[in-house]
Amino acid sequence: MKARIYVTLKEGVLDPQGQAIEGALAALGFAGIGSVRQGKVFDIELEETGEPAAERLQSMCETLLANTVIEDYRIEMG
Amino acid sequence: MKARIYVTLKEGVLDPQGQAIEGALAALGFAGIGSVRQGKVFDIELEETGEPAAERLQSMCETLLANTVIEDYRIEMG
Repeated sequence: MKARIYVTLKEGVLDPQGQAIEGALAALGFAGIGSVRQGKVFDIELEETGEPAAERLQSMCETLLANTVIEDYRIEMG
Repeated sequence: MKARIYVTLKEGVLDPQGQAIEGALAALGFAGIGSVRQGKVFDIELEETGEPAAERLQSMCETLLANTVIEDYRIEMG
């Protein structure tokens, strides 16, 4: 089974990487950009499916893939 | 307008970061994992909407956000 996990910074957490991209876009002449925030995406192939896979993925996020103090994660299975 | 851009490595391109995560997950006791690939996601706020925004976003991807030699990108507007 294939799953995709999105890890993004929580609202209110400073994103220096996003700010750097914002600055770079402005320097390249792209005007009218409000804000840029960067996150991560993981494509994972699992042997399991269904409920056990969902639990497993959540556990992976909590222990390794996301820093839940400052990051949110979302799991998409399919 | 808010847009989300996904940048992922093309198939066949080596992903050492993904392999490191795969190894780390195995070391943490997560068995049965086929492969892990890591990508990036950008959340961008734009003043423009519709067709001009779509063109603008595509141009941003081509010039800064994605390395189109080794990466694919996908734009989601809404």
